Amino acid sequence: MTDSHVAATVKVGLVQMQCSEDPDENMQKALALTREAIGSGAQVVCLPELFRSRYFCQSEDDANFALAEPIPGPGTDAFAVLAREHDAAIVLSLFERRAPGLYHNTAAVLDGARGYIGKYRKMHIPDDPRYYEKYYFTPGDLGFKSFETGKAALGVLICWDQWYPEAARLTALMGAEILFYPTAIGWHPEEKDAVGEAQHRAWETMQRSHAIANGCYVVAVNRFGFEPDPAGPGGIEFWGQSFIVAPDGSVVCRAPADRECVLVEELDLSKLAKLRHGWPFFRDRRIDAYEALTRRFIDRD
Amino acid sequence: MTDSHVAATVKVGLVQMQCSEDPDENMQKALALTREAIGSGAQVVCLPELFRSRYFCQSEDDANFALAEPIPGPGTDAFAVLAREHDAAIVLSLFERRAPGLYHNTAAVLDGARGYIGKYRKMHIPDDPRYYEKYYFTPGDLGFKSFETGKAALGVLICWDQWYPEAARLTALMGAEILFYPTAIGWHPEEKDAVGEAQHRAWETMQRSHAIANGCYVVAVNRFGFEPDPAGPGGIEFWGQSFIVAPDGSVVCRAPADRECVLVEELDLSKLAKLRHGWPFFRDRRIDAYEALTRRFIDRD
Repeated sequence: MTDSHVAATVKVGLVQMQCSEDPDENMQKALALTREAIGSGAQVVCLPELFRSRYFCQSEDDANFALAEPIPGPGTDAFAVLAREHDAAIVLSLFERRAPGLYHNTAAVLDGARGYIGKYRKMHIPDDPRYYEKYYFTPGDLGFKSFETGKAALGVLICWDQWYPEAARLTALMGAEILFYPTAIGWHPEEKDAVGEAQHRAWETMQRSHAIANGCYVVAVNRFGFEPDPAGPGGIEFWGQSFIVAPDGSVVCRAPADRECVLVEELDLSKLAKLRHGWPFFRDRRIDAYEALTRRFIDRD
Repeated sequence: MTDSHVAATVKVGLVQMQCSEDPDENMQKALALTREAIGSGAQVVCLPELFRSRYFCQSEDDANFALAEPIPGPGTDAFAVLAREHDAAIVLSLFERRAPGLYHNTAAVLDGARGYIGKYRKMHIPDDPRYYEKYYFTPGDLGFKSFETGKAALGVLICWDQWYPEAARLTALMGAEILFYPTAIGWHPEEKDAVGEAQHRAWETMQRSHAIANGCYVVAVNRFGFEPDPAGPGGIEFWGQSFIVAPDGSVVCRAPADRECVLVEELDLSKLAKLRHGWPFFRDRRIDAYEALTRRFIDRD
């Protein structure tokens, strides 16, 4: 699986950042933190979901469509300079304008001198109080994606996809060695005491299970900080706590909950094959019996 | 979802047992421990995988086929008495003889006065050092199953199935409120120091993820004790540590690692709908994009 790569290791950089109301400021900060990650040796850098703005999906507001941009476009152009200069791969979560009235929650992938090599459009779109994504984002129509880069095969998924074993599986079956999840997840302050800890634990558990079930690394990159609800009291307290999971499900590293930071970690891709030999889950999948996974529910009548 | 049940709660009993070389002794003990669970209020009782014998798959030995029995047959008959007498549902893992040369690793389900109501044949069959199940068991041909009982809709899966999100998902899509996993999993003593903790943690993590992803309870019932490898030195040190997971992924209770025991716990089935409203994963599944889950691997050429 790693035969196509020069080295069996890759240094991955996670940029956990706080996002202000000023898109330009966020862009400059994201570039600076990416440069910092690369300066610490990162060969692949991942930014949080929709880092160019506040998490605008807290309310349904027509004005927010102005934040969208084409992909490729200004966002990928700005980061492509860094990618080329340092031969880095970058996973860039952007608000994609495809046509008037047609927008996606998208992650672009840049690979060193090749620049922009493709995009993944978020397949699973949430819609819950303060996460009104169905208003803004058309569900992805590109399917699941793994991107061959000079560093590793990068699977790219986005936030709500985290809760779907189907998404992780399909991406791993395409050859992904590392699953990246740019994320924007946090607490409603009013329910944090009651269910906050269980929510956070469940989030991490799901992603650890993807690493185990698929014998791959998982990298989740979250934003940090409190963002008020423009429509009323309250808001979202983003968790930070970005993390990396090894193919055995253990947490390799975890960013703090209380600040911005850059994590850089070396991952040994040769562990994937070793793990999969010991836990040969791919060998025994009952592909003859999975057809009904394409059904909404298996009703009795 | 729980409308068809009289009560929104159900008391579940887990029988974590050690198995000797004497099938009759194991049978008597299993009946006694099931009676104990029912005596403590259990309405649904689950036994560990293949509790009627040692875990004979440590070696490939023709003589072990003599341990198999038809289903329904003597095993279900013995437990049906208990099920009827106490209006209990029982999940019974047995070595099924279907025809000469055709055997399955099967779980039978009994439901009170109805007696034997059906079976699930293990779909995913492992084959690893000391877990030579492919020699003994033909992979299941009944598909995934959820059994409507008077207590709850019981999904039944077996051991190695634990590692497959597809199995949990399909069973939950059939309406299962609780996923039962009769299990026989343990350490190779010679690798316990190096990877034992990670293995155990991964096992629990996978099953917690099934509960979260599907908004249901998960019950894993393991055997306990050291069983020597008949073919040589070493053997398997079964973990015990049977457990129940709530739909939010939290561990409700966990049996000890160092002894036989019966756990009885009341589960609130009304939590499923609440959880699924908060985390509406079923709503957003991209069933139009899951077709490739029926492929072995998604090759590039």
